[in-house]
Amino acid sequence: MSDSKGRVLLAYSGGLDTSCILAWLIEEGYEVYAFMADVGQEEDYEAARKKALAVGAKKFFLEDLKSEFITELIYPALQANCIYENVYLLGTSLARPVIARGMMAVAAKEGCDFVSHGCTGKGNDQVRFELAFYGLKPDIKVIAPWRIPAFYHRFAGRQALLAFAAEKNIPVTQTAAKPWSTDENLYHISYEAGILEDPNTTPPADMWKLTVSPENAPTTPEQISIEFKAGLPVKVTVPEQQKTYTDGVEIFLALNALARKHGIGRIDIVENRFIGVKSRGCYESPGATILRAAHVDLEGLTLDRNVRALRDQFVTVELSKILYNGHWFTPEREFITSAIPASQRTVNGVVRLKLYKGNVIIEGRYSDEGLYDEKESSMDELGGFEPVDTTGFIAIESIRIKKWAQANARKGQAGVAPEDVYGSRV
Amino acid sequence: MSDSKGRVLLAYSGGLDTSCILAWLIEEGYEVYAFMADVGQEEDYEAARKKALAVGAKKFFLEDLKSEFITELIYPALQANCIYENVYLLGTSLARPVIARGMMAVAAKEGCDFVSHGCTGKGNDQVRFELAFYGLKPDIKVIAPWRIPAFYHRFAGRQALLAFAAEKNIPVTQTAAKPWSTDENLYHISYEAGILEDPNTTPPADMWKLTVSPENAPTTPEQISIEFKAGLPVKVTVPEQQKTYTDGVEIFLALNALARKHGIGRIDIVENRFIGVKSRGCYESPGATILRAAHVDLEGLTLDRNVRALRDQFVTVELSKILYNGHWFTPEREFITSAIPASQRTVNGVVRLKLYKGNVIIEGRYSDEGLYDEKESSMDELGGFEPVDTTGFIAIESIRIKKWAQANARKGQAGVAPEDVYGSRV
Amino acid sequence: MSDSKGRVLLAYSGGLDTSCILAWLIEEGYEVYAFMADVGQEEDYEAARKKALAVGAKKFFLEDLKSEFITELIYPALQANCIYENVYLLGTSLARPVIARGMMAVAAKEGCDFVSHGCTGKGNDQVRFELAFYGLKPDIKVIAPWRIPAFYHRFAGRQALLAFAAEKNIPVTQTAAKPWSTDENLYHISYEAGILEDPNTTPPADMWKLTVSPENAPTTPEQISIEFKAGLPVKVTVPEQQKTYTDGVEIFLALNALARKHGIGRIDIVENRFIGVKSRGCYESPGATILRAAHVDLEGLTLDRNVRALRDQFVTVELSKILYNGHWFTPEREFITSAIPASQRTVNGVVRLKLYKGNVIIEGRYSDEGLYDEKESSMDELGGFEPVDTTGFIAIESIRIKKWAQANARKGQAGVAPEDVYGSRV
Amino acid sequence: MSDSKGRVLLAYSGGLDTSCILAWLIEEGYEVYAFMADVGQEEDYEAARKKALAVGAKKFFLEDLKSEFITELIYPALQANCIYENVYLLGTSLARPVIARGMMAVAAKEGCDFVSHGCTGKGNDQVRFELAFYGLKPDIKVIAPWRIPAFYHRFAGRQALLAFAAEKNIPVTQTAAKPWSTDENLYHISYEAGILEDPNTTPPADMWKLTVSPENAPTTPEQISIEFKAGLPVKVTVPEQQKTYTDGVEIFLALNALARKHGIGRIDIVENRFIGVKSRGCYESPGATILRAAHVDLEGLTLDRNVRALRDQFVTVELSKILYNGHWFTPEREFITSAIPASQRTVNGVVRLKLYKGNVIIEGRYSDEGLYDEKESSMDELGGFEPVDTTGFIAIESIRIKKWAQANARKGQAGVAPEDVYGSRV
Repeated sequence: MSDSKGRVLLAYSGGLDTSCILAWLIEEGYEVYAFMADVGQEEDYEAARKKALAVGAKKFFLEDLKSEFITELIYPALQANCIYENVYLLGTSLARPVIARGMMAVAAKEGCDFVSHGCTGKGNDQVRFELAFYGLKPDIKVIAPWRIPAFYHRFAGRQALLAFAAEKNIPVTQTAAKPWSTDENLYHISYEAGILEDPNTTPPADMWKLTVSPENAPTTPEQISIEFKAGLPVKVTVPEQQKTYTDGVEIFLALNALARKHGIGRIDIVENRFIGVKSRGCYESPGATILRAAHVDLEGLTLDRNVRALRDQFVTVELSKILYNGHWFTPEREFITSAIPASQRTVNGVVRLKLYKGNVIIEGRYSDEGLYDEKESSMDELGGFEPVDTTGFIAIESIRIKKWAQANARKGQAGVAPEDVYGSRV
Repeated sequence: MSDSKGRVLLAYSGGLDTSCILAWLIEEGYEVYAFMADVGQEEDYEAARKKALAVGAKKFFLEDLKSEFITELIYPALQANCIYENVYLLGTSLARPVIARGMMAVAAKEGCDFVSHGCTGKGNDQVRFELAFYGLKPDIKVIAPWRIPAFYHRFAGRQALLAFAAEKNIPVTQTAAKPWSTDENLYHISYEAGILEDPNTTPPADMWKLTVSPENAPTTPEQISIEFKAGLPVKVTVPEQQKTYTDGVEIFLALNALARKHGIGRIDIVENRFIGVKSRGCYESPGATILRAAHVDLEGLTLDRNVRALRDQFVTVELSKILYNGHWFTPEREFITSAIPASQRTVNGVVRLKLYKGNVIIEGRYSDEGLYDEKESSMDELGGFEPVDTTGFIAIESIRIKKWAQANARKGQAGVAPEDVYGSRV
Repeated sequence: MSDSKGRVLLAYSGGLDTSCILAWLIEEGYEVYAFMADVGQEEDYEAARKKALAVGAKKFFLEDLKSEFITELIYPALQANCIYENVYLLGTSLARPVIARGMMAVAAKEGCDFVSHGCTGKGNDQVRFELAFYGLKPDIKVIAPWRIPAFYHRFAGRQALLAFAAEKNIPVTQTAAKPWSTDENLYHISYEAGILEDPNTTPPADMWKLTVSPENAPTTPEQISIEFKAGLPVKVTVPEQQKTYTDGVEIFLALNALARKHGIGRIDIVENRFIGVKSRGCYESPGATILRAAHVDLEGLTLDRNVRALRDQFVTVELSKILYNGHWFTPEREFITSAIPASQRTVNGVVRLKLYKGNVIIEGRYSDEGLYDEKESSMDELGGFEPVDTTGFIAIESIRIKKWAQANARKGQAGVAPEDVYGSRV
Repeated sequence: MSDSKGRVLLAYSGGLDTSCILAWLIEEGYEVYAFMADVGQEEDYEAARKKALAVGAKKFFLEDLKSEFITELIYPALQANCIYENVYLLGTSLARPVIARGMMAVAAKEGCDFVSHGCTGKGNDQVRFELAFYGLKPDIKVIAPWRIPAFYHRFAGRQALLAFAAEKNIPVTQTAAKPWSTDENLYHISYEAGILEDPNTTPPADMWKLTVSPENAPTTPEQISIEFKAGLPVKVTVPEQQKTYTDGVEIFLALNALARKHGIGRIDIVENRFIGVKSRGCYESPGATILRAAHVDLEGLTLDRNVRALRDQFVTVELSKILYNGHWFTPEREFITSAIPASQRTVNGVVRLKLYKGNVIIEGRYSDEGLYDEKESSMDELGGFEPVDTTGFIAIESIRIKKWAQANARKGQAGVAPEDVYGSRV
């Protein structure tokens, strides 16, 4: 290794890009170790291992990160109802921190000076990976070939890569690439680029992989129930299967299977990347879609109003941004997530759901938490407080509003400001 | 009128409650005028007019407020993507300000010293009405019988009302009340109270009135497109009907009909009332559900990222709260809505949708606005900026993260803080 | 006690109002225990005890709450930089939760069914006390005489109270009341009401009690230093006194003495009470003013930028509102304060200050935390990152801005929107 | 000009750096026009003009931007109470947009393809300038020599610049540079770098330029009053001068003079630059400090509570960040400032102030706006509402708090959650 430029741990996918990068890094004088994370994607890991070694990797590491992916990333995001720009459930974002952490652990153990990845120079993932690397090991050195002019000019276009692959004896399984790219893990799959770059192109029916279409889903609804403790699912009951699931990983996978069957969890959006470019993405997040709906619903029954409002405005919004922008290993993430437990202490109970052709329909929910009080909320009977109390409440609430209305009236307006377009009618 | 206690304008619905209130107010020595607002609910207004006059109202006023309801309340809420507690589209909240304004206009013209309503003492609507009254005319006097002990103790239970109705010759159309109460307008219908007070009771299938169930919706999807200008719908194209709609009111009603047909817009939640009580509500907001999905989608294509994030965190959240809590005629509403136009200037374009059994599926969208740039976002070609720029971006973005990681490392942690439960693995 | 209406624990101050309330409660048939909290106010507790018993209290309780006041309320508020409406340091608000908790502990131990206080019906303190009572013991019964019509109509005006005091043999020390009212504790004193109700009346020089005026403060500045650990003061060094203070309570009292001497901590504002009424208040918060300035300064050196921004917008604002509105024993307070520790982990270091005639002047600060890096921030030398990286950063940051400017330009504007009044010049 | 690389408009200061850049740009083959903005800094513009032309500039432009600086940047920031990280009044940030706009206007008129500036590669100003350039003219080309390796390696250190100046016959007025750098305009002066880079170094007394020290300020206080309309100062009355000021620019300059005399407006902080580096800055913002104190105070009297809270959390925080980070010509700035007018409509009235040795002391304020009501806020008399109303208000406010406390109690806690460190005492 003495004349090597150093040892690189490469995030390897087994595909054309990272195989060429592997060969190129060797050509550039590095010793390369290949790293794969199993975050639940459908993959022939053994084939990838053989290929990496064949191309020239000195070692190959496969880390099973599924359990920590679910319990350390997905579950906090679920507790916080994370969502990006109202729609995207952050499936790729959630996997990046565990993969980066897995890589840094191998890099440390194996004495790698460099890490490398095959992300493009325009996307979010390069940022997510590298900020995670630096947050874990600030002096790590990163090689990002798709941002190195010598590399990206040389390999502009798929043909150049195929030629290089041929030159390096890299086996190419598909001669024609799919007209989009994907990122898959147990939480979701993303589709972007290629024909999807026209935001007015409807995704072809055969693109979707993790769910059936609502049209092809069963015509009979299916009822399930999910029990939560402290905002986390602890039991899923599926009568049709005569089964219950209680293990964190199994719960997630069972919900994935149910959602897949019922056509639940497809998304198609134009989103804003961290670098400020708009980008069209299609996603399938089957189980996550069910879980989020159930969790949001149960919070209605079990979470105090003010906690919910503050959590929504603070934790949900900020943690979603943090995840999307790859800021997991940062002080602000540490700060924000430290507030999650206090927000979920009372989120205990069961939600009953009906799954039907793309719909997640809430059918009921119950809890012992006691924040809901039937008698108190009843319109039909007294209880909890005297109606006359509300008179006082309204009197006090109206004090400052009356003052403002009086001031407006003095200015010649009957209760509304002159400039106020929405209030100007009276 | 000389020995009258004064003239009252009563918000009259034609039902048992407000008819009894009408009679009771007369008994109490008031002169009563009855007021009805047409905000699009299904109603026999003529029967209500006759009944009010028969019970003793001196005058009856019916105001058609549909157009201003749509253009002045619903459309700003749409522009701001308003939603309460992640789920509720605020249909009742939106109608209250126009009804209250309609009442205050009649009260002013007719010299009424008092206004009265039949809202219960535990709900949101009493607050919404009265704060709107005070915001428009701070010295108006409000009579809220369901908060007056003499009234609510006398009329505790439906039997007492029925007996009083018999005594006063008030015709009662339904002898048995529905086991829930509703509020309807052209935007939505709400169902609450009665059997719905148990949050685990699934609403009966025959409760839902404005939509078919997804199960009963057509098995063939229907495609439509909606064009927006400055965030407002200006054209809806419905190929199956060979029709386009361009009038604000017609657009809304056409979307209502489409959503009704395809089973779109049902909601079932436990929400937090302004007075701090949790309450279960079921809602149908058919057209609004389609419009919101389309508007949110188009903003992805046409709204700047930072404007969107600020608008979401500020206008959407706060305006939703303002609407829900009945704070429309307040300085804070004036303040918040003043920021809407600048947020919608670029929201111009068309969204293509597929409606199918409860689903609103985005199929594509386009715009001339130019904030989306296919070449720039493309993963497959260079354009807009050099990939190497991103290296600089990441280097700068990581400065403070590295500093934090170094500090953590000095404290004996590899890049994560000791107390940080989510980062502690490495 | 058999014919008593029950046992009341009265928050007793020794003054005319609460002495009359004590006598009135007895007259009304209650058994009354008197409670005083020592939160550092200047008070003759022994005289108060004698007076309470003389007026008829069955028992008298004095609880020393100074230490928990500082460590459990003042210090979290300091860590969070709490301030209300930009100016008020929340001295009264901070004391209420410990007093209420002290009362509830005695009430529980002594079997009191009721608690009572002498707060007026228009202020914040009634709300703060009662919400704290209910948050600690939801079924406690509260007697608030100044909101009971029979009481407040009988005792409208000081003369009626004086007459009642004479009738009940209650000794009255001052025949003429001060033309304002005060609330004092070790953190601050407040002045309000009386002549201060005209917001244009300058407070008389002899009103201020806890500080000298800047004009009368020493003409020689005094230098001190404060060391913080996790955002809390752990050592104050006062060279002029040749002393250091390390105990939490002593630190606070030493800073109070220094600020008093140097005329630091006077405030005069018109603030918004929780009930929506505007109110003029004058305050002296001597030590707190120094501590806040030092803490804010040290955070500049030791707190990550993003954590600071999120904390400012979330914890500071919300906790200040929570404190002001008396929501300490609530789920939202529990939620918000749970995020404080993660925000203060790095706030370690020393701030050097100069005190001079009302001014708290920062003279320097240092820390081992390592988030500040002289070489990196230096304008004169390279270090940390290459200047060329910033080119990439700016290129990426400008992507969406350029897109927006291009869109504006296409609409016939050179880079600014037509409606935008501030950008319209070019 | 045919073999020129193009025409550059250089932001010229007359100092060593930009003179060398001017000469270097010519050496590089550009035609250079020099641009100076008069934003109120103390400067010998005529000397600068001569020097620029002597060094080789083809043309010299001096634009007087003082009035627009005050009315278009400073005044909106005042209306919004802008402040960065609790302390910094944003003086440099505020000037950048008007300077950039002035440059772009000249560049357009004179057909310049390039603009250039002398900002370092580590600071905020490069970002502020360039983002403003791109926001106004997205295709402008920027030459930033301090980020071009060929330049910054060649001119590493002052000696290299001095040698180049000698070679190019650039007159150097000061042989020894000051041990810090400054940026001055009519709003403020900044000091940073050099000896100030150690955050524990107290700034030398002779550094401060725009104010006397509090110690050297007059021993007699001076009283003034400021009248605001819609949140902007319209009249300043200075009895000691027997003068009133009513012109926007004159008002600002008069307050500057008063603050300078009384030692008001010095700041010393460690702040977080946009690029994520911490940096120590000292500032004098004399008039701005008085204006902000007065404006904040008047808002207490004249601004609705909820508007104030929303404005503080939204406009103040976000606009300050926008200004600091150089995002003035962006859609988010357009969005945020669009909400200012509605927030300032009622901010009308007069504030009376005392200036004394560094202190801005509020002595009183009045307004015809009518949101403050002496009778209503009075503790001594009834008015506005009945005290008993507050009982209802508290009853309603406590509903959800009691529910939470009951739930805690059922879990074996007397009103507080087990995990809640601050509430755990009872």
